[in-house]
Order: sequence, then structure tokens, then C-alpha cells
Amino acid sequence: MLKDVVRTKSYQNVITQNSFLFKDKVALDVGAGTGILSLFCAKAGAKHVYAIECSQMADMAKEIVKANGYSDVITVIKGKVEEIELPVPKVDVIISEWMGYFLLFENMLNTVLYARDKWLADGGVVLPDKASLHLTAIEDAEYKEDKIEFWNNVYGFDMRCIKKQAMMEPLVDTVDANQIVTNCQLLKTMDISKMTPGDASFTVPFKLIAERNDYIHALVAYFNVSFTKCHKMMGFSTGPRSKATHWKQTVLYLEDVITICEGETLTGSMTVTPNKKNPRDIDIKLKYALNGHRCQVSRTQHYKMR
Amino acid sequence: MLKDVVRTKSYQNVITQNSFLFKDKVALDVGAGTGILSLFCAKAGAKHVYAIECSQMADMAKEIVKANGYSDVITVIKGKVEEIELPVPKVDVIISEWMGYFLLFENMLNTVLYARDKWLADGGVVLPDKASLHLTAIEDAEYKEDKIEFWNNVYGFDMRCIKKQAMMEPLVDTVDANQIVTNCQLLKTMDISKMTPGDASFTVPFKLIAERNDYIHALVAYFNVSFTKCHKMMGFSTGPRSKATHWKQTVLYLEDVITICEGETLTGSMTVTPNKKNPRDIDIKLKYALNGHRCQVSRTQHYKMR
Repeated sequence: MLKDVVRTKSYQNVITQNSFLFKDKVALDVGAGTGILSLFCAKAGAKHVYAIECSQMADMAKEIVKANGYSDVITVIKGKVEEIELPVPKVDVIISEWMGYFLLFENMLNTVLYARDKWLADGGVVLPDKASLHLTAIEDAEYKEDKIEFWNNVYGFDMRCIKKQAMMEPLVDTVDANQIVTNCQLLKTMDISKMTPGDASFTVPFKLIAERNDYIHALVAYFNVSFTKCHKMMGFSTGPRSKATHWKQTVLYLEDVITICEGETLTGSMTVTPNKKNPRDIDIKLKYALNGHRCQVSRTQHYKMR
Repeated sequence: MLKDVVRTKSYQNVITQNSFLFKDKVALDVGAGTGILSLFCAKAGAKHVYAIECSQMADMAKEIVKANGYSDVITVIKGKVEEIELPVPKVDVIISEWMGYFLLFENMLNTVLYARDKWLADGGVVLPDKASLHLTAIEDAEYKEDKIEFWNNVYGFDMRCIKKQAMMEPLVDTVDANQIVTNCQLLKTMDISKMTPGDASFTVPFKLIAERNDYIHALVAYFNVSFTKCHKMMGFSTGPRSKATHWKQTVLYLEDVITICEGETLTGSMTVTPNKKNPRDIDIKLKYALNGHRCQVSRTQHYKMR
């Protein structure tokens, strides 16, 4: 993950270019991993940083903090945010890299919100404080053939029952910007400084307008994050027109191949809910309709991120 | 895995081009997955095929068998080989694709040997019946820098404690044939028709001879499998000079950068043992020495495949 330059460099720039947010402040790093964000905060002048990490990586983080001479400034706490005690009642800044694929898959958002409600001082800052989900539509004949239609005839055998399952699995992959057929639409913005865990379940409408005559094989979701409390607005996008990150994009294949003409609109809605059995999994429902002059289609599809 | 053409096509060729091994025989498919190997066997004229699969995929395999009209020939049994009952006392052929990364990582070999000892008739055949482990040495300055030396300075911080761990993790990746500096040496051959589980623990010597003046950054292990009971010998290699498979190769980075001249030999031994706590994990010990005219080195390194 450290090798995801977009991700790590964005956090580094946010922290080092906005030391006014950290100078002499107490910071909390939720899900610290190697401790890299805590180290950035310490270097930016934080009075103290509490780095919480529940995996074995916490032991490494302790060694790394020591090796870099920050033992007095950074305290690594090994444990779950929901179970540990902090030596201070309040913190000034919470920083975290909590985002999962499709923003919400296997994410740590609820843990960040828990930490915010428990420890963030009045007027304190959460970094990042905005995350948004976006949608577009792509032509993807080649890969759909490879990934989905493959199951029609596997070395001469009919495996279409696997195709049904493959269709329901959102595919995390990088999409070429040239494949984009429509505009990109903002679906949902989340304000991390105010939202509740329930706000991560939602139904939102969309309206995608074709920018050329083409076929649509899949919808593609991606997210942006922003740090609006910086001196100037900072952030990064995981969209297909931005530099690739380890989050890539999330491809939702459609049952139908949609023949769309420039200016026609694909309208519908997306419903996102944590899976009831395993809240770290995500259920996605897509409704879409096109009433174009070469193609009529109206359908509901269900996806499961597992 | 079905999309690994080398793998699936090899099994398909073995089965369809050697129907004499299957015609009117009873076959057992260990770890059947989608049932593809069972379908090949049925098509080759097997009297009956028992396809054992312990995961949810067994339900898919049942559907697939039915969809392809082989319900009378193939019986899918959902369960663990060690726990299920077979409706017949003996089988004529056991077929399995049991190999893991580095041949032995998270493999199903012991399950195949269990099935062989319990159900294989006298004179019966195990497919594949030979598997061999091979070793070579590569120049890999660029990737070693990227994967190992990276930790020396991560955005300005010293994370060398992670480097130590990274060094101990064999890396599964495809190696370019141009990186090969020495000959490729056979380390160990396993006869699946005769071996015992204990034979998967071993210490073997090696002697690699440089074919050019170069640097050695890593040793690379890979495996071949053979089907020697075919009309003519068949099989495939997962080596860096063969078409890539999903097994790729296994790269063991060396502490030292070895400066080797054409004709000089890197000698040593490799010890492979299942991990005591988790026998599906593999512990690898490498001893190596070079007494070259530009470089002397002698070292023991430990690796853990987890």
C-alpha cells in the first residue's frame, strides 16, 4: 500500500504542506499500519501522535518509530480502536486511510466515526473529511467476453451457472479512459466530520449522458477523497482519468449490451447497503433504463462484493 | 484457474489423447473444482467418475455436470476426501490438479496420497505421476531495488525492519528468461505413485554454473509435472523459459549481491519442510557459497511461505 504513490504522496502533501493543522496538536492515526501517516504528522510538528493498529504490524510500527527517533512523539497502541484506552481525553486531529475498494468495501469508516465521536475535540479536524462516489459507463466488449462470456463454453463445456455468479461480482480493475462512453456523475458525497454509520447505506439516482455513439457493457464506480481543511483544497481521485491507484475502479457488468447514441441518457438508481450477515461486505442494487431509438432496456441487477 | 491455458489444456490433452487410460475405467478427481477434469474424463469414455470437492464449488460442479448431460457418468461428492465414502471399493485412475506455488505451498498432495492409498486399484494410475522442483539464479537489480531496498527509505523514513521480513518472504512472480544467469538445475523429483507425505520434506544440494559474467540477486525455483503413463510422455513446465502459468515462479532474494563470472559455480543446498504450526505453509532454508575470483560469499538464509 505504501507503494501506492498517489495515496501516500497525497497524505504526505496534505500533512507537510499544512503543518498549521498539526503544529503542537495531538493527533490520532486510526489503522496506522507501518505508522507512515503518524511519522508525517510528527515531522509536521505534532505535539503527540497516537497510532492505533490492531494487526501484528503494530510491532513493526513501534520499531519504525524508534528507528526514526520519534519514540517521544509517537505512541503506537496495539489493539482495536473500540477496545483500547487513550492516555488523553481528546485529540485535535484524526487522520486515517480507511477507504476500501468501491470506497466502502472492507473499509474502516465506522472505526473512524467511532474514534471521532469518542475523542475528537470540539473544532477538531478529521482528515480526509470528504469522500464521494462517482459513476460512469464504459464500452468493454473485449473484457466482458473474457470474464463473463468465457463461461458459455469452457473447453467445450457449458458453465453458464458460473457466469451468473461472475455477473454478480463487481470486478476491481483499471479501466482505460478511452472506454468511457458517458459523462461521469457524482452519486454521493459523505462528510466524514458529520456523518453517521447509517449514511453509508443509501439509494441515489443517476443520469448518464452518452458522449458518443457506442455500446455500454458495464457501469464503473470510483471514489474521490478531499481534505477541505487544508490551506487550499487537496485530495485525489481514483477515477479512470486519474493516475491508477491500488483501489483501481469497480466494474459492474450489465446483463444487456446497451446500444446508445450520443445525447441519449441511461437513467437509474444505485442502492448500496452493507451485507446483513457480514457488514464488511457490500450489496449493490442497480436499476437502469434506456429508451433510445436503437435500444430499449429496463432492468434491475444485484451485485455482491465479497 | 480455468483461464490458465497451459494448465487446463495440458490436462485436456493428456486425457483426450490417451483415452486408453480412461475408456471403461472408474476415475477419481481429487479437488474437482468446477469439475472440468471429470468432464474431460467422461468425454474420454470413463465408465464412471467420482468428483470430490469440499468447497461450495461442488454445488456448481453438480449443476455443470447436469447441464452437460453427464449426470449418469459423473458423481460430484461434496466433502473432504478424508471424510467421505466412495460407493466403489477401488478406482482405476486418480486425477488431480493439486500443485501449489513452489509446487508445495498450500498444496493438496497429501490428500492425493491419502486417496491413492485408500482407493487406487493395483496397477491403477495417478495423473500426474511425476513432479519435479528446479532451481536457477537471476540478475534482478531493478525489482530487488523496488521490492526490498525500497524499505531503506520510505518517504524519508527508515523502515529496514520491514525489509528483513520482506527478505524472508518468497515472492511469487514471473521472471524474464533474459534474467537467468546460470544453468537450471533439477533439485528433486517426486513420484506421486509411490511417495509418502514425508518425501515432501527434504534437503537437496545444488550447483549452479554461471553462463555469463553477471550479478545474482535471487535464486528462482519452479516446478515441472509429467504424465509418464501417456502413450508418449506429456507434461508442462512452470519455468521462466516456458509460457507463463498462474503459478509463475518463486523468487528467493539473497542478502548478498553475488558477482559471478562465466564458469564459476554457486553451490549450496535447499531444505524444504512444511511449517510445524501450519503444515500448509512452507519453510525453506537456503545455504549457498561462491568462491569466485571477484566475490566470496557463504551464507544461510531462511524463508517462510505464508
